[in-house]
Amino acid sequence: MNIYDIAEEAGVSIATVSRVLHNSDKVSKSTKEKVMAIIDRNDYRPNVFAQGLGSDSMHTIGILVPDIADQYMASAFSALEKLLVSYGYDCILGCSGYDAVEKEKHLKLLLEKRIDAIILVGSTYAGSEDETHNTDYILEAAGEKPIFIINGIIEGKNIYCTATYDEKAVYDVTSALVKKGRRKILFLTDSRSYAANHKKIGFEQALKEASLMPDPELIIHTQNNVHTVSDLLNERDLDFDAVIATDDGMAIGALKYALKKGLRVPEDLDIIGYNNSSICEVSAPELTSIDNKVEKVCSITIDRLIRVLNGETDVPSCEMIHCDLVHRETS
Amino acid sequence: MNIYDIAEEAGVSIATVSRVLHNSDKVSKSTKEKVMAIIDRNDYRPNVFAQGLGSDSMHTIGILVPDIADQYMASAFSALEKLLVSYGYDCILGCSGYDAVEKEKHLKLLLEKRIDAIILVGSTYAGSEDETHNTDYILEAAGEKPIFIINGIIEGKNIYCTATYDEKAVYDVTSALVKKGRRKILFLTDSRSYAANHKKIGFEQALKEASLMPDPELIIHTQNNVHTVSDLLNERDLDFDAVIATDDGMAIGALKYALKKGLRVPEDLDIIGYNNSSICEVSAPELTSIDNKVEKVCSITIDRLIRVLNGETDVPSCEMIHCDLVHRETS
Repeated sequence: MNIYDIAEEAGVSIATVSRVLHNSDKVSKSTKEKVMAIIDRNDYRPNVFAQGLGSDSMHTIGILVPDIADQYMASAFSALEKLLVSYGYDCILGCSGYDAVEKEKHLKLLLEKRIDAIILVGSTYAGSEDETHNTDYILEAAGEKPIFIINGIIEGKNIYCTATYDEKAVYDVTSALVKKGRRKILFLTDSRSYAANHKKIGFEQALKEASLMPDPELIIHTQNNVHTVSDLLNERDLDFDAVIATDDGMAIGALKYALKKGLRVPEDLDIIGYNNSSICEVSAPELTSIDNKVEKVCSITIDRLIRVLNGETDVPSCEMIHCDLVHRETS
Repeated sequence: MNIYDIAEEAGVSIATVSRVLHNSDKVSKSTKEKVMAIIDRNDYRPNVFAQGLGSDSMHTIGILVPDIADQYMASAFSALEKLLVSYGYDCILGCSGYDAVEKEKHLKLLLEKRIDAIILVGSTYAGSEDETHNTDYILEAAGEKPIFIINGIIEGKNIYCTATYDEKAVYDVTSALVKKGRRKILFLTDSRSYAANHKKIGFEQALKEASLMPDPELIIHTQNNVHTVSDLLNERDLDFDAVIATDDGMAIGALKYALKKGLRVPEDLDIIGYNNSSICEVSAPELTSIDNKVEKVCSITIDRLIRVLNGETDVPSCEMIHCDLVHRETS
C-alpha cells in the first residue's frame, strides 16, 4: 500500500493525501476524514522521520539553480516553490553559476543546512561532453539527502531525475525541416550540458538518417545572448536555410541577423528555438519553439519528493516526458 | 566609528570589512590583518548578537517577491543572493503573489523562520492607491526583524527602503515627448503599486505643466502581457502619438499593435518601456526603456543590511537613486 493506492481509493490526488498527512489546513474536514479512514483501515504508516516530523527537520528544501535570472530557471523555481509551500515546506534558493568548482561548493553549502532534500534545476548539474566534468559530488551528496534533478539524468541511489526527451524533440524537428527541403540547417547551442548534448545528438542523427553529413561549420557553440549571436552570424556570413537553437535567446539572435540581411522568415529561413519562453511572443515575427514543459517537470518532481519524504520506497528514480513543438511565425 | 570609517581608513570596501568581521575566506591574509589592526586600534565592536553570531542566528535572510518569474524580480534576487552569499548568508525565497491577504500570510510565514532580516522585493509591498490596502503588517513585522524594502517606501522603525525616483523619471520622459511635439501620450500601467502610482503622478504632472490635460481614455490599467495589450489597443482604436508603459512587456504589446497597424516607430509613434529588461533587445525595433538600476538598488540594500546586522545605529532608513533613460530604436 503506498500513497498512490490511498489517493486512488479516496478518489483524490496524492497531493491531497500528503496534505492530510501533513495536517495542512488546505484540505476540507470531510476529505481529511475520508482519507484518514482509508489510511487507518490499511494501516498505512509513512516513516515519521522521513516525513520531516523528526526533530532534525526544518521543513525546508534546498534548491540550487545556476542562474535565477534565466527565464527557464525562474519559471521552474516559481512552480516548485508554489507546490512546496502548499505542502508546508520552505525553499532555500542558491545560485551556483555554471562553473564546476562553484557548483560543488554551493551544493556542499546547502548540505550543511537543515534541509530535507535538494533539488538541482538545470541540466548543467548532470554532466557534459567535457571529460573533466564529473558528477561524483552529487552522488556523494545523495548519501546525505535525497537529490532531485530537473532536466538531467544521473544514476545513483537516492537520486531522482525528471527530464524531457530533448534528443527526440530535436530529432523530430530536424527531420521535419529536412522533409520540407531544408539542407543546410544551422545548430546553435550555448552549453555542453546533459540536455544540450542530447539535443545535438538528435540533430545529427536526423541528418545522418537523411544521408546528410552534419557540417561542422554549421554547429556553433556560443552564448545565449541575442546580440552575441547576431554579431557572430554577421561576421561569419555562413550559408544556411534553417536554424535550430537550444535556447530561445539564440534563436532571436539568428532572427535579428536574418531580418537585417533582408531574408524572409520563414520563406527563406525557418527558425526554431527551445524552452518556449515568454520572449517567443515578444519577438516579431513570433518565434516557433520547442516547449520543454517546465511546469509539468516540476510537478512530477514534487510529487516524487513528497513520496520520498513520506518514507515510500517504491518511488521511480527517473521519469521522462515528451516536449511539444509550439508553432508560431518563424517556421 | 562605524564600518564606513574603518573601510575608508583601510582603503577597502565596507564589503571587505564585513567579510573580515565574518571571518570569510574570500579576504587575503594581509587585508584581514590590516583591517583587524584598524578595528583593534579604534576598539570597534560590532554587536555580536546583531552580527548573527548569537545562537539564535542561522545566517539566513528571508526574501519575499510577488513573482520570481518576473524578470525584474529574478534579476533582483540574483543580485541579492550573490551579495548575501559573499557575506556568508543563505536566502529563503518566498513567492507571495500580489494579493494582499497572501502577502501578509507569506510575510508571517517567513517571520516564523530563524532568519536575521527580511527583504521585500517590489513596490507592491509598499502600498497602493487602493484605500483598503494597508501596510500595517509590515510595520508589525519590523517589530521582530529588520525589514528592507526594494522599490518602495514605508516609514517606520527598523524599516529600510531603497527606491528609484520613478516619478521624476517619467516626468522627464513625458516632458521630452511633449517638447518633441507629442500631444496624445498613452500611459499604460499594470499596477496600483507604490512605484506605479509615482510614475503616473510624474506623467500627469509633466502634462499639466505643459498645459495639457491628461486624457482619462489614454491612461489604461491593464496586464503586463504582450498580447493582452496589443489586443486591447486593437479593440479600442484610440488616437495617440506616444506610449509610456510602466513595464517593458506592455510597451512591447503597444509596439506589436503599432507595427500591425502600419505605423512607423518612432516616426509616427514613440514607445518607451520601464525596467530596461532583456526583452528590450529581443524586440524589433529594439525598445527604449527607463533603467531603474536593479543591481545598484540591491547593492545599496545589502550594504545597509550588513551594517544593521553589524549593530550599527546610524544606518539611513531611506535611499533614493536616479533612473537612466536607455535610448534604443523606438524613440
